[in-house]
Formats: sequence, C-alpha cells, structure tokens
Amino acid sequence: MAISFKRLLIGKPLPTEHAEHERLTKILALPIFASDALSSVAYASEEIMAALLIAGTAHFTLTPWLSLAIVVLLGIVVISYRQTVMAYPNGGGAYIVARDNLGEIPAQAAGASLLVDYILTVSVSVSAGIAAINSLLKVYGHNIDNQIVPLCVLSIIVIALINLRGVRESGAVFAFPAYSFILLMYALVGIGLYRLLVLHSLLPVHSAADYQTAKLLSEGGASGETATFGLFLILHAFASGCTALTGVEAISNGVQAFKEPASRNAAITMSWLAFLLGTIFMGVSYLAVQVNALPPDAVINPADGALGETVLSQIGIAVFGKGGLYLTLQIVTCIILILAANTSFAGFPRLCALQAQDGFLPRQLNNIGDKLVFDNGIKILAFFSILLVIIFKGSVHYLIPLYAVGVFLSFTLSQAGMVKRWLRLKTPGWQFKAANNAVGAIATCIVTIIFGVVKFSHGAWVVVFLIPALIVLFLRINAHYRSVAKQLSLQTYRPRQGWRHHVLVLAPDIHQGVIPALQYARAISEDTKAIHVSIDPNREKRVRERWTLWSRGIPLQILPSPYRSLAEPILTHIKHLREVEPRSLITLIIPEFVPEGFWAKLLHGQAGVMLHLRLRSVPGVVVISVPYHIKALVELNADEEAVAHSDNIHQRIPTRAPEGQPFITIEGSSNGMQPKEPVS
Amino acid sequence: MAISFKRLLIGKPLPTEHAEHERLTKILALPIFASDALSSVAYASEEIMAALLIAGTAHFTLTPWLSLAIVVLLGIVVISYRQTVMAYPNGGGAYIVARDNLGEIPAQAAGASLLVDYILTVSVSVSAGIAAINSLLKVYGHNIDNQIVPLCVLSIIVIALINLRGVRESGAVFAFPAYSFILLMYALVGIGLYRLLVLHSLLPVHSAADYQTAKLLSEGGASGETATFGLFLILHAFASGCTALTGVEAISNGVQAFKEPASRNAAITMSWLAFLLGTIFMGVSYLAVQVNALPPDAVINPADGALGETVLSQIGIAVFGKGGLYLTLQIVTCIILILAANTSFAGFPRLCALQAQDGFLPRQLNNIGDKLVFDNGIKILAFFSILLVIIFKGSVHYLIPLYAVGVFLSFTLSQAGMVKRWLRLKTPGWQFKAANNAVGAIATCIVTIIFGVVKFSHGAWVVVFLIPALIVLFLRINAHYRSVAKQLSLQTYRPRQGWRHHVLVLAPDIHQGVIPALQYARAISEDTKAIHVSIDPNREKRVRERWTLWSRGIPLQILPSPYRSLAEPILTHIKHLREVEPRSLITLIIPEFVPEGFWAKLLHGQAGVMLHLRLRSVPGVVVISVPYHIKALVELNADEEAVAHSDNIHQRIPTRAPEGQPFITIEGSSNGMQPKEPVS
Repeated sequence: MAISFKRLLIGKPLPTEHAEHERLTKILALPIFASDALSSVAYASEEIMAALLIAGTAHFTLTPWLSLAIVVLLGIVVISYRQTVMAYPNGGGAYIVARDNLGEIPAQAAGASLLVDYILTVSVSVSAGIAAINSLLKVYGHNIDNQIVPLCVLSIIVIALINLRGVRESGAVFAFPAYSFILLMYALVGIGLYRLLVLHSLLPVHSAADYQTAKLLSEGGASGETATFGLFLILHAFASGCTALTGVEAISNGVQAFKEPASRNAAITMSWLAFLLGTIFMGVSYLAVQVNALPPDAVINPADGALGETVLSQIGIAVFGKGGLYLTLQIVTCIILILAANTSFAGFPRLCALQAQDGFLPRQLNNIGDKLVFDNGIKILAFFSILLVIIFKGSVHYLIPLYAVGVFLSFTLSQAGMVKRWLRLKTPGWQFKAANNAVGAIATCIVTIIFGVVKFSHGAWVVVFLIPALIVLFLRINAHYRSVAKQLSLQTYRPRQGWRHHVLVLAPDIHQGVIPALQYARAISEDTKAIHVSIDPNREKRVRERWTLWSRGIPLQILPSPYRSLAEPILTHIKHLREVEPRSLITLIIPEFVPEGFWAKLLHGQAGVMLHLRLRSVPGVVVISVPYHIKALVELNADEEAVAHSDNIHQRIPTRAPEGQPFITIEGSSNGMQPKEPVS
Repeated sequence: MAISFKRLLIGKPLPTEHAEHERLTKILALPIFASDALSSVAYASEEIMAALLIAGTAHFTLTPWLSLAIVVLLGIVVISYRQTVMAYPNGGGAYIVARDNLGEIPAQAAGASLLVDYILTVSVSVSAGIAAINSLLKVYGHNIDNQIVPLCVLSIIVIALINLRGVRESGAVFAFPAYSFILLMYALVGIGLYRLLVLHSLLPVHSAADYQTAKLLSEGGASGETATFGLFLILHAFASGCTALTGVEAISNGVQAFKEPASRNAAITMSWLAFLLGTIFMGVSYLAVQVNALPPDAVINPADGALGETVLSQIGIAVFGKGGLYLTLQIVTCIILILAANTSFAGFPRLCALQAQDGFLPRQLNNIGDKLVFDNGIKILAFFSILLVIIFKGSVHYLIPLYAVGVFLSFTLSQAGMVKRWLRLKTPGWQFKAANNAVGAIATCIVTIIFGVVKFSHGAWVVVFLIPALIVLFLRINAHYRSVAKQLSLQTYRPRQGWRHHVLVLAPDIHQGVIPALQYARAISEDTKAIHVSIDPNREKRVRERWTLWSRGIPLQILPSPYRSLAEPILTHIKHLREVEPRSLITLIIPEFVPEGFWAKLLHGQAGVMLHLRLRSVPGVVVISVPYHIKALVELNADEEAVAHSDNIHQRIPTRAPEGQPFITIEGSSNGMQPKEPVS
C-alpha cells in the first residue's frame, strides 16, 4: 500500500540508462541558470529600503547609490567567475574548486555554506513569490496575510514532488517565464523612466506626509523610535541588497550543460546575466525611490497591522496602473521566484551527493532514487526550507539577515581557490588571472565580514555558528567512514582459523511450525542442539514427552527461566558456550510463525521477532528465523476440530511452577520413528 | 534506556515461584471483596434522585421505596449467588459458570459483559471518588470542576502503575479504609436518624423554595421543561439505582482465596456484605430525601453553571456539620471508591487471561509480566477507562446509563447456568436449588431488559450494540486460533521428502565485512552460490576482479538491476530458482554491517535490513544476516589512511551505466590462494 501511494505521487521508476543530459544553447541555458539570480530583483531593492527605514525614510535616496555599489561588486564577482568557468569545463562549483585547490576544511566550509544557502534560497524565493501574489490580491481588495505560511509550505511540497518525479530542468519550461520576466522588467524600467523623465506623469504611491512618518514595523515602528543613522546602517542596507547577487554562480556549476565550446558559451552567458541583472536592479532601485514606495513591513497607521504590498508591486502600479500589465508582472514575478526555488532543488541534492561520495555526508545522500534523482537530498531540502518558512512566518524581511552570508563565503573560498590554482599551474597569463581572482576574493571576503558583523544580531549569528558546526560534523562523518574503510580493508585481513560452529535450534513447543526449523538445523549442521526455555511447565512437559518422536536425532536442553523471560536464559547460555570455547560462532535458529494478514499478526506474540532483534547485536551470533506460514482462517470439520483440540495447543495457565530441574538434556532418538527426510 | 525507565516505574522482575496466594479469614476477605459493592452507595441514591428529578423534585419521596425494591433484588441475587459459591469452591465467576453449563456463546456473552463493566467500574468509581473530594473542597470554598478529568486520568494511571508493580491485594491495606467506611456510614445513618426522629434537629440543606424549583442541568434544566412522570421514569430511576448491586458477585470469583471451608466462609461473607450494603443504602436513600439533598447535576440558579456537591456530602454536612467527621467521611469515601476501581484492575486482567487461554482473546493477554501480573490486561483496562473518563468528562451522571447493563446480563447468564447445572447433576435437593437460581435468573433477566429499554436512548445503546459485537469478535478470534491449531497439529503431519536446499550469499562488495558471510555460507553448505546485484558498475568491476582471490570456491552470479533496486533482481532470481525446482528451500545469506552506536548507524544505509524485511515474507525462503561489527571510530595512522584510501571504498558515482551483461557467472577458484579455514 505504501508502495502504491509512492507510485501515485512519484510515478514509475526509470532505468539507469535514461540518465542522459541535453546540451544547451546559450539562449536556452540562460533562463535555466538565470532565474535564481534575476528573481532576486523582486526583493533586493525592497530590503535595502527596509534596512534604511530603521532611521526613517529620509535616507531612502541612498538606495540607488547602494545598488550601484552592489552592481560594481557584481561586476567584480562575474569577471572573477568567468575565469572559473573557463578553467573548469566540467563544472566548477565552490565546493569542487575549494576541494581541488585549498584542501579538506575549506572545501567543507564551502559545502556547508552552500548547503545552508540553498535552503535559504528556497525559503526566501517561495516567501517572495507568495508575497507577489499577496500584493496582487491586496490591490484587488483581497488579503491572504493569514494564509502565507500554509501557501509557502504547499508550494515547497509541490516543487519537491515535481523534483522527486524526476522532471528534468528543461530549457523550454524555463524560457517562457524567464524571458517574459526580463521583458516585463525592461518594460517597467523603460516606461517608468520615460514617464518620470519625459512625460513627468509618474505619480507617487504614498503621499509625502505618509511617506515621512512611515516606520518599520519590526523595529520599534509603533513606538516611533528611530535608530541613529551612520556607517553601520549603510553597511546593513548594503548587505541586505547583496542578496541580489545570490545565484550568479549557478552557471559555474553547470558548464558541462552548455553546447561546445562549453566554457566559452558559459562565460558569455554569465556576462549576459550580469548585464541583465545589473540594469534591472539599478532601474528598480531608482524607480522605487522616485515613486515613494515603502517596504511591506513599513507602517503608516500603527493601528493597522496589515502588511503592505511589495515594492515591486508598488512600482508596477505606479508605472503600469492597475491593469493587465500589472497583473502579468505580479504573476510572472511569482513564477520566476518559484523557478528560482526549483533550481535549489537541483543544486542541493547534487552537492549533497558530491559530499557523500567524498565521505563527508551520510552515504545514503548519494543514492539515486526511482526517478534517477538524489531523492534523499530533495526530501532534506524540502524539510529544512519548510521549517524556516514556519519559523520566520514566510516573511522575506525576517529571512534576509540569514541569507547570502553563506553565498559570499563560498564566493570567497572559490575565488581564493582559483588564486591558489594560478599560483600552482602558472599557465600563460597567470599573473593577470590570479590578480583578477584575488580582487574578487578580497572584495567578497570583505563583504562576508561586513555581513557577519552588521547582520549578526539580526539573525546572521545562526549561520555564523552553524557553518563551523557543520564543518565539524562533516569532518566527524568523514573520520567515521575512514575508520570503517580501514576495518573493511582486505589488505590487513588475516583469516580466522580453527573456529567452531555451534548450531542451536529453539524449540518453544512441538508442533508443525517447529518441525521446519529442526529440519533446517539438521540440513545446515550435523552437530545441532535444541534448546527449550522453560516458562510454562505444561508446555515443557509436552515438549519433553514428544521429543523422542520428533527430534530428528537432535538432543534437547531445557533452560530454566525463573523470571519467565525468553531471551535472558538464551543469552546466558550463549555467553556460557562462548566462555567455554571463545573461538566459536553460534547460530541460533528460531522457528517463526508468519500468519497471513495484519489482524492475524496481532493475535500472535512477537516473541520470535523480539528475540531476533535482541540477539542480532550480540557479536559472534547469527540468528536465523525459519518461517512457517499459516493461514488466518481454514475450514475445520468436526474431526479436525477434535484433532486441533486433542493436540492441546490451547491450555490453561499454570498457577505454580514445578520444582525446577535445570539443564535437563534429552537425547533425541537418532533412529526415531520418523524417516529422516533429506532437505539438502 | 527504555528498559531502565520501565524498571523505575515497575521495579525489578519477580521469579515465578513467588506466585503464591494467602488464604484469608472472613474478616480480612470482606474488605477486599466488599469495597466495589459498598462503594456504590456513594452514588446509587444520588442517581435515583437524578433520574426522578427529570420530572421535578416532587417525586423524590419515591427514592427510599425504589431503594427498598433494589434491596429486595439484592437479596434475591445474593441468595442465588450463595449457591454458586457453594458449587464452585475454586471460583465461579459468570464466565466460568456460563462456559461450563451453557456453552460457548453464552460464556462469551458473559465475558464481554463483564469486561465492559470492569472498564465502567473503574471510570465510575474514580469519577465518584474525585467528586467526593470536589464536594469537600466546595464546602471549604474551593472548586476543582475544571481539573476533574486530569485528576481522574492521573488516578487511573497511578492505580494502573501500582497494579503493574504487582502490589498484591493485601487484606491489611483494604481493611482499614473499608471498615472505616462501614463505621462512618453507620454513624451517618444512625446519628442522622436519631437527630431526625428523636431530636428533630436535622435541618434541610436546601430551602423548600430552592428545592421545588430545582431542575436537572442535563435535560432541559435551564429551559424549565419537565418530563412527564410515569412508569418509564420510575423504571429509569430503579435502573439507575441498581448500580448499587455492581460488585456483589466479586466474592463468587474469589472463593479459593478464603480459608477452609472456603465455600462456607465465602457464602457467609456474602451474606454479611448484602446486609451491610442493604442497610447503608436504605439509610442513605431515606436521609437524602429528608435533608432535601439535590443531585450535583441539579441547577437552582440557571446562571451558575457550577456542579453541586454529591448527595452523600450534603447528608454528611446535614448530619455531622462541617467538622472533622464530615472531612473524614469524604476522604474515606474517596479512598473506598479508588479501592473499588483497584479491584477491577485485578478482575479484568484475570478474566482476559482466562478468555485468552480459551482462545477467545489475543494470546498475549495471558502473558505474565515481570511482576507476575497480566500486564497487558492492566494496560488495556487503564486505556479504555481513561478514554471513557475523557469522553464523559469524568461525570458519574453521564456514565451511569452505560453502567450495570453488563453486570446484570452476567448475573442472568451465571444464574441460568446454575439452573442448567442443577437440572443436569440432580444432586440432593436440586429442585429447591434450581428454583432458587431460577428466581434469581428471571429477576435479573427482567432487570437487564428494563435497563436495555429505559436507558437505551441515554447511552445504554452503546453497550447493547457493543456486547454482541464483542461476542462476534471473540468467536472470530477463536476460529483463527483453532485454524492455527489445525495447521500446527502433528497428527496430520506428513514430512516433505526430497527437498533441495539452495544457499545463496549476497556479495554487495568485496571487503572484510563480506568475508564472514562467505565463510558462513561455506560452513552451512557445500553447494553455495554468490550473487552480486549490479547497481554501480565500478563496484561490480571491483567485485569481479577480486572474486577469484576471495571467493573460497563459491561461484558468483551477477544480477543486472536496470532500476537500481537491490531487492527486485534477487526476488526475480529466487522466483526463477523456485520455478525451475519447485521443491526447493532457498537460504539467502546477507552480510550486514553492525556499526557501534546510534549515530554511526545513521551513516550506513539500511539496505541489508530492508532486504531482510522484504524477503522474510516470501514462502520457502530463509534469510540470514551475518553480522560484521565495526567500531564507529578507530585511530588511523598515515599508512593506514593510505590503505583505506587505496582500497577504494569511497569512490565517485558513475554518470552512466556500461552496457549490461546480464547473468555473468564467475567460477570461484576452489583452490584459491587463501587457505580454506574450517569454521564448523
């Protein structure tokens, strides 16, 4: 049943040979790799303003200038990353570059940072996507503030299921929404600038009075306090805006997906991406200030606790009006954000698998599921991103301080790795390339430190402590796997000589269910002993009486059990055998009922299963359950009723145990009345 | 850890030989067997009044007369039961009497009725006990109306734990509270009557005006409607009061606990009990009306939703005043009620065990726990009584309609069984005895029918449908056990001849963890084959390359797995083997890692365990896990690191499977380079 439910959700399994990759042209590759980076314009300008709002709206004019600084940083990063793309034609994510050039700990640091940021990308993107739809509905008089968290969770589950079904990232699926988004954003910026600068018809969305008194809801907004304006605040706003850069490294992971010449095509696509991202981001930041837009967490009227619309939505209304173009903008924005989350569902499991192959994450993360995807990674990503959405109530603003710290740390490590690589290889022109990457490494390193300081108390401390903790965990996991490899290595193996094999068969009763176990015991060894744990004196008596007839020549030993435990006397007996003969391997054969159907199972004690579980962890012991399948109900005629009853399977409980005679051994009749049938 | 928590709650296990019984004198036996019956005077009068109140307080004068009718019924039942006690010196509960004289279905009907009523006894008694304490606190200005359910649940859990610890019903524990209760009740009735009839100083607890306008909260009390007074209402009140008779049969279950002559002593004790119960009950009912007591569910002021005090508490105040004697009365009442619940915790598991022995309830109910008690029965009773308390909000009044139906049905069956017994045995004076029991059977049968009719719509329908459903269930369980007994019977057993034993050993890789499984396979059979499921081509290659060296002469077969499943190709292979040779038994040996510690286990796939679980239900297959214990962490020096790495246990995942070559068989070198060490 569990399997058929899985089939319904995930579909039929795919054979291994289907694992192929399409090679993409630049036009088709751009939308796949760009959605993550481009989608961040939906919230980056807004987050700069939210940071500045702490000191009041007066400093909003800094927004375009901070955006410009971020675009400059984008240029540095992309120039630096182009070199990575050229150097790693089979994909050069930060983890691989750090591993190949910097060693174990930096590689695991890059891995930890990226894993954390993949999770945050899903949470932030989905939250921003739902915020876009929420803004749209608010404009038309609806409000889904209370449904944000369930909608985010549902979206993540749907994305995870699509990925578990193994739907491949197809250029065609991404192309339409991504190019629509690019076109719409250019239309927004272009028409906006035209109306502002030429027609002078762009009206502000908030009145000057409202605008001036607006406060941030989360930091003393209602109480009217404002933070002092200064360098710290500017850096905080800059750091918040740097989330625009998340995702630009995606192309470096996927160079092998491009048509040949892959590296060149990837580098060109990366430049396109940087141009698109830079111009749209600048335009949005400029227009946001011009139309008096306010971040959704801003409050004008303290009595009204409702969230406002997103900044992009406010610009959309100011530029397009509340018509079809605005509606399209919001829907396409939501789609591109969901697609951005989707790219993490490709990246996170792939990185997990890479780290698992290297022995730094549990091996199971490298298992390929029915649909040729790393399904454990997909499930883990879905779990943690849902957890974050729930903790942070689906608010982009609350999630942002945690975001991008990891990305910038991985940028730094990746580019530092490249510098080390040039210093080592000294290929032609290495000095220029090394300098180039060094600038990138230093710039992103500075930004990472800024992040750690200015966002620390806002939530980045979680990430600052989490990444080292993850590194330690990864190294511990690796130490374990290396220990296991040593213990499994055949190079140091010396075979064990002169071991003796004891076969014990448990005879809890004498009936048809026990006979196969006795047969089995005889089949695997000539030197078998049977044991009966004496819990019920009547049953012990029955076993003893019938033993000679049914024993197949196996001697029987009765183990006393004063506390009515089945396992304890057997454990003691095995311990005793191993003390007498330390070089011995003991096989215990347990006859086990397997009744048909769930209800019938409830009607039978699970003593055999319990005993199996208890003994399986004892070294030097092999436990075998010999199953005896029985039907839940069979037709009984009157004669058979009599047979069943006379067999005395049902009988009263004893009120008192007889005087115990410990360790009775009854020799089985090796020339018993039953023919010894061959089973082997 | 689970075990040590259990030890803390339950204590150390007891050896079987401690199962002994003390034989009791009548003086010590009375409190043990009487608490259930006597405690019902705490609520029986009250429930008569609550039933009458539906038609207003005017008919309260009927209370003593209805009580008198119930006492007459008590006399009939006790006279009838005295004969059961004389006839069954080893205990003659309704189940045993019905089983021995009436047959299977009436016996199961008696069993079902008694089980249901044991559960209700716990719920009703505990609820009434907490109500006694609540009344006491109300008198002193406190109120625990909101804590009733948690307190009831807690009490049941504590009683269950005490019983699980195997604290024996000791006469001494029961004697003090039971005799205190008897004395206090006689003091209450005696002083009450003296003040009423001689001193004329007994004042009513409610004013005449309040008294006349009082309505029952639960049946339109606030709306002021009253039901029409008539025969139905009188019968309903009578039925509610009959709860006083629950527990009088307890002595018949425990005749064997009395000192010799056991039957005579038990019969005398039963008469004492009837006298005590009858007089106290009459006295309480009479005084209740004289002091204008009102049931706790009555409302005087509709605005005040609070429950009133119990009737017994109201009489206590009227007679004793609000002093120490009243305080003692309430506390002792609570204790006797809790003790009454406790007796069910002895009776219910014992009856379950009896039915389980007869094969009508799951066999596990006959398991004796660490403390020589039937712990599964105790847990089930606690579970269902807690469930009832929660559903009925710990209200005695809401529980009463369900109660006593089962008891009276079991009375009827027990006494009908006795009639049948006398007709069969025809011992001297059988005519008189049969007539005696027949009167009892007919009287209780009429009462049972009255119950079913008048309480039906108030909740008794649950019991009316539940008991037949339970009977059907018990019979189904029995049919299953008889089917099993037939299938297990050796009388029809014919040994299987000419079976062939195939041993397969799974070689997922070649390393030290696999060698013990290969050794084991060689030890148990000369005719062993190894199989490798090809999921990872690199691993397949490694296994093939190393096979000749490590095979111990076992031929290897490679099974292709296009969908990367481990289990499917093995299942297909086994199916194929069994198709070729239907009379074959297949043993599959799985090498299994057993890493130390919980965390280490998480780092290893549970593929072996999963395969084991998957295959264990396949008929004709025996699965053996050969464990290989590994430490979570071992010290590695530089050389060993090299060894571990060169052994290539960690390696990259393949991006593409090679062209499959299905069913390659590599013959192992039977004269391999490794010495074939003896393991058996």
